[in-house]
Amino acid sequence: MIVVMKADAGEQQVRHVVEIVQEMGLKDHVIVGTDLTVVAVIGDERKIDQGTLEQAPGVDRVVPILHPYKMAARESKKEPTQVRISDACVLGGNAVAVIAGPCSVESEKQIMDSARQVKAAGGHALRGGAFKPRTNPYAFQGLGEEGLKLLAAARDETGLAIVTEALTPSEVDLVSEYADCIQIGTRNSQNYKLLEAVGKQPKPVLYKRGMWMTLDEYLQASEYILAQGNANVILCERGIRTFEDHTRNTLSLSVVPELHQRSHLPIVVDPSHGTGYARLVADMSRAAVAAGADGLAIEMHPDPEHAMTDGAQSITPQGLADLIVTLKRVAQAVDRVIDSNG
Amino acid sequence: MIVVMKADAGEQQVRHVVEIVQEMGLKDHVIVGTDLTVVAVIGDERKIDQGTLEQAPGVDRVVPILHPYKMAARESKKEPTQVRISDACVLGGNAVAVIAGPCSVESEKQIMDSARQVKAAGGHALRGGAFKPRTNPYAFQGLGEEGLKLLAAARDETGLAIVTEALTPSEVDLVSEYADCIQIGTRNSQNYKLLEAVGKQPKPVLYKRGMWMTLDEYLQASEYILAQGNANVILCERGIRTFEDHTRNTLSLSVVPELHQRSHLPIVVDPSHGTGYARLVADMSRAAVAAGADGLAIEMHPDPEHAMTDGAQSITPQGLADLIVTLKRVAQAVDRVIDSNG
Amino acid sequence: MIVVMKADAGEQQVRHVVEIVQEMGLKDHVIVGTDLTVVAVIGDERKIDQGTLEQAPGVDRVVPILHPYKMAARESKKEPTQVRISDACVLGGNAVAVIAGPCSVESEKQIMDSARQVKAAGGHALRGGAFKPRTNPYAFQGLGEEGLKLLAAARDETGLAIVTEALTPSEVDLVSEYADCIQIGTRNSQNYKLLEAVGKQPKPVLYKRGMWMTLDEYLQASEYILAQGNANVILCERGIRTFEDHTRNTLSLSVVPELHQRSHLPIVVDPSHGTGYARLVADMSRAAVAAGADGLAIEMHPDPEHAMTDGAQSITPQGLADLIVTLKRVAQAVDRVIDSNG
Amino acid sequence: MIVVMKADAGEQQVRHVVEIVQEMGLKDHVIVGTDLTVVAVIGDERKIDQGTLEQAPGVDRVVPILHPYKMAARESKKEPTQVRISDACVLGGNAVAVIAGPCSVESEKQIMDSARQVKAAGGHALRGGAFKPRTNPYAFQGLGEEGLKLLAAARDETGLAIVTEALTPSEVDLVSEYADCIQIGTRNSQNYKLLEAVGKQPKPVLYKRGMWMTLDEYLQASEYILAQGNANVILCERGIRTFEDHTRNTLSLSVVPELHQRSHLPIVVDPSHGTGYARLVADMSRAAVAAGADGLAIEMHPDPEHAMTDGAQSITPQGLADLIVTLKRVAQAVDRVIDSNG
Repeated sequence: MIVVMKADAGEQQVRHVVEIVQEMGLKDHVIVGTDLTVVAVIGDERKIDQGTLEQAPGVDRVVPILHPYKMAARESKKEPTQVRISDACVLGGNAVAVIAGPCSVESEKQIMDSARQVKAAGGHALRGGAFKPRTNPYAFQGLGEEGLKLLAAARDETGLAIVTEALTPSEVDLVSEYADCIQIGTRNSQNYKLLEAVGKQPKPVLYKRGMWMTLDEYLQASEYILAQGNANVILCERGIRTFEDHTRNTLSLSVVPELHQRSHLPIVVDPSHGTGYARLVADMSRAAVAAGADGLAIEMHPDPEHAMTDGAQSITPQGLADLIVTLKRVAQAVDRVIDSNG
Repeated sequence: MIVVMKADAGEQQVRHVVEIVQEMGLKDHVIVGTDLTVVAVIGDERKIDQGTLEQAPGVDRVVPILHPYKMAARESKKEPTQVRISDACVLGGNAVAVIAGPCSVESEKQIMDSARQVKAAGGHALRGGAFKPRTNPYAFQGLGEEGLKLLAAARDETGLAIVTEALTPSEVDLVSEYADCIQIGTRNSQNYKLLEAVGKQPKPVLYKRGMWMTLDEYLQASEYILAQGNANVILCERGIRTFEDHTRNTLSLSVVPELHQRSHLPIVVDPSHGTGYARLVADMSRAAVAAGADGLAIEMHPDPEHAMTDGAQSITPQGLADLIVTLKRVAQAVDRVIDSNG
Repeated sequence: MIVVMKADAGEQQVRHVVEIVQEMGLKDHVIVGTDLTVVAVIGDERKIDQGTLEQAPGVDRVVPILHPYKMAARESKKEPTQVRISDACVLGGNAVAVIAGPCSVESEKQIMDSARQVKAAGGHALRGGAFKPRTNPYAFQGLGEEGLKLLAAARDETGLAIVTEALTPSEVDLVSEYADCIQIGTRNSQNYKLLEAVGKQPKPVLYKRGMWMTLDEYLQASEYILAQGNANVILCERGIRTFEDHTRNTLSLSVVPELHQRSHLPIVVDPSHGTGYARLVADMSRAAVAAGADGLAIEMHPDPEHAMTDGAQSITPQGLADLIVTLKRVAQAVDRVIDSNG
Repeated sequence: MIVVMKADAGEQQVRHVVEIVQEMGLKDHVIVGTDLTVVAVIGDERKIDQGTLEQAPGVDRVVPILHPYKMAARESKKEPTQVRISDACVLGGNAVAVIAGPCSVESEKQIMDSARQVKAAGGHALRGGAFKPRTNPYAFQGLGEEGLKLLAAARDETGLAIVTEALTPSEVDLVSEYADCIQIGTRNSQNYKLLEAVGKQPKPVLYKRGMWMTLDEYLQASEYILAQGNANVILCERGIRTFEDHTRNTLSLSVVPELHQRSHLPIVVDPSHGTGYARLVADMSRAAVAAGADGLAIEMHPDPEHAMTDGAQSITPQGLADLIVTLKRVAQAVDRVIDSNG
């Protein structure tokens, strides 16, 4: 942490900062520059509130030096973490996994059709929401446990692993019982009680980035899960809030290589929420794999025009099958592979 | 809802859109323009997923016409809603209320001092967190129920109403027992289960806008509370995520007059989180009142330099007292008043 | 400048950074922390490209310590700069000035009416565009020199000073001949050749912030004008690009107190472009004055419904007159004054 | 254009809107819905200022239906435009072109080395700035005409086409004389006088998107060039301003497929400015090609550590050579090709 003093800060003000630093149990190091003085703080700055120092008289601002995360950091673990959702769906190795399925579980027929179509297209896991966080309070909120049972039945038939969302801590045990991987959605990305709850159960977690979070904040929040003992965290870029209006979110693919450099956790891209439009999903899926993504989470619906939720961003079963054919070629071009799911 | 067809859409594609609209139980109205054709959809578009139509062949895009909220809308209730937290603290009338206090309840002495200082400065309610949503998983997470008891003791002595945050549905009853008003923080602004939970209990809710939410999304989400029967919702602008870096968030004061025009709910401004720096709080508080805010939520700490959380944005007790003196003048200049709290 | 080394950087890499720093003629200061090493760079970092250091092996990142501007900084000049556009319109003193008028000069009658109405309402200067930067290439682009002549005629009759925009260096002399103050618009805020051109002529410059610029970038760019010898720069906040959609831009009023703390230059707020809607202009004008603005730039049109440009954000003459009455009260509440323009 | 009336708008207010529409020479179409009334406006809405209608009493808002561009639109020209910078560098066909070189021309040796290295690596054109728009007014501003001459000499030796920037209208003829393609930078993306100037000269234009511009605004602004008769416009995504801080800009790759769907103009991606860090350039280059980019503009410097400008984002000659090898594989995977430059 570097405490930057104002240009006109007096000696006594610098001394006061030094005292605060020492009071915190950290070491100070004063550097008198040509324009101003800075106090370098040596020790683990993550333990303290930098606001305390920002409030001291004569201080211009405080610049953190350490990234605010530890367990998620590449420094703490050199080799990539591989998260195994099922034998056919492992994230973080050389193979790129495709997780696909409808936004919501709507009916037995719909989810069974979806599962068969995902399987036939070459996908590695089935996604589908039983508990849905809808912006519209009056809209369909999911089938609940009934939906989880349908997902389990789809797994039984197709062998595909199941990825589905939990919305609140009290739901986690139930979801964990049925799912092979629990999804945390963007709107709950800083719902710390929920992060702790999924950190305490044994299934892998597909943890989506908040559409307003910086990477420092995102990796820091992931430690709410990791610190509870669940090391199987899969990061997921699903688009951020910007001024752009040709998409519903801006899919920031540079986070893929950046997260690989900063963290050992695998990273998945969701081009469906990341753009909001089916017409952009195939190109952005290929771009994500080229950028180094370990997996994709794609919305596919047997009949997008009659989807109860997110129809606009769902591709068709044929679209998925065609996409996976080209994804294999792109994966190969960057020395990755998309394994058979059979 | 207006379905805009592509310039080269054929008649059959238009007919197909019309069929979908009719299937949804809504009325269609086709308008053939000079460049393209649009299909106006008549009826309550809030019941349907616009994605369905966006997926239909030949459709360029779908433009919603109705705002996605109803109960929060000015149209549904002409006169402003007045939310009474206590006799001294009513939001939505002519008086502007000041809610102040530390970010976290840290100790008996700290919260008692804070309460006395808020009272002496002329504040109308005491804020302070017992359950804290911290970005840092290893940082102080609040005193929990012990903190609620200290807040209640502070109320007993000073008569100030208590505003404090709930983080998860299972906490809501406990918080509701002690608090006069429950706060929902920005990170939980789309934690719908939590919104429903506070909608089911009787205390007023200070509901902060998500730092990524548009006003349509914000008012729509407020209906998760309203729809459960709790009409006492206080909106709160606390800054949004933008590229600006001179503040921690961008405090968007235009939402104050805009929300007054769109909604009957009162609106409070939080200049502390809204800027992140104590040095900007007084000016932005005055600006908020001039813009028409019904109240302010301000972080004040007896000793900001030693605050356990958010020291950088907390003003001092003297700072609060001085601020309220000038706020009274600004309030008067816009035909509002800041009442005595005695 | 602080060069943060990677946690696993070797001694030789640190030595290499030290060599680069010395090669640049600056002093180094190595601090070995518990987690990593940083190299503090002492001397004027503004002379060098920080990228050079970011490229060196073992470097994690480079953190600038000095703000990138000098002449605009409060440190370089303690007392506020007062910019005199005319005797009745001085920015940066205790009086708050109101600059008002139509977006474009459309006709003799329109601009004469506008001038008389601004004068009658109590405004201190007349704004109006003769050269217009229109997003639509096929739309009305302004009357050009004819517009400048009409503005001059309006000044002759009413005594109001004239504020009008220049779009390109070759226009500057012509605009300077007629105007009392030259406006640089947001789209030209990093058109450095234009900034230099207005820096070389004698009239004050109303320099609008780019809707994408941080304050560091803004003040730094202002030095393109200052460095040419023109000290009469008026800063202007006119809204920034964010995800918000209830306004055309997000008017970031916290820049007003922040710029006062960082710079000696006066700061004006444009609530018309800053919101894009006439219905928000009065409240945001009052908020701007309460936040400490030295002046306002407001769009007013004799007949907004028939304005050729920016009708949506123009208030009526009566609206302006009513607004100035209440602005006087708000100004007084913050110990400022709005002088008579007579 | 759809004029949405307020829920409580009266019949007379609707009639007034209809009158304005007719006054504008357009056709109206009134639709009475269940909640409110809308007036559809039939005809070319691009000719009128929508503000006029937004100001009319009883109007809630105005929704444009037509995109605000015509000549750049796919509808106006079905087949993709191919822009030929040189025989080896054509954008918009099946081949993907690589334009590479240093940020600035610094010296004869530096630019000659760069040219040879770009050529050897397999690049198709040489980029380099002779006139530089620097955020820092005191920093190196480029070699000017001397730089242009050095670029021409580099072309003479290597045969590589030259892409270089013009900053102001009066420079355009000079730049046009030496360059094979004129670049317009992001900061000048709405410098309309400059756009017109490059529209009037014969060389192709590499027109970068403003880091704050929506696609509608971008394509609309491109018509300032097209409308002057220069049809050889190459679009370029170079990153936008968002809250993200792990990169200098957010590279929004979804604009690549979206622009291909909306426009016939070729689209190039600049991953160097788009991220700001050399360490992300290779992955984002591959992603751009996978997303469908027609070309890449990459900063390469013979010695990035000693670059005078933008060292942090420049890759090395070896880095470029290695990158092009893998780009060829990615291009092939999406049925494109990177041609030999020999």
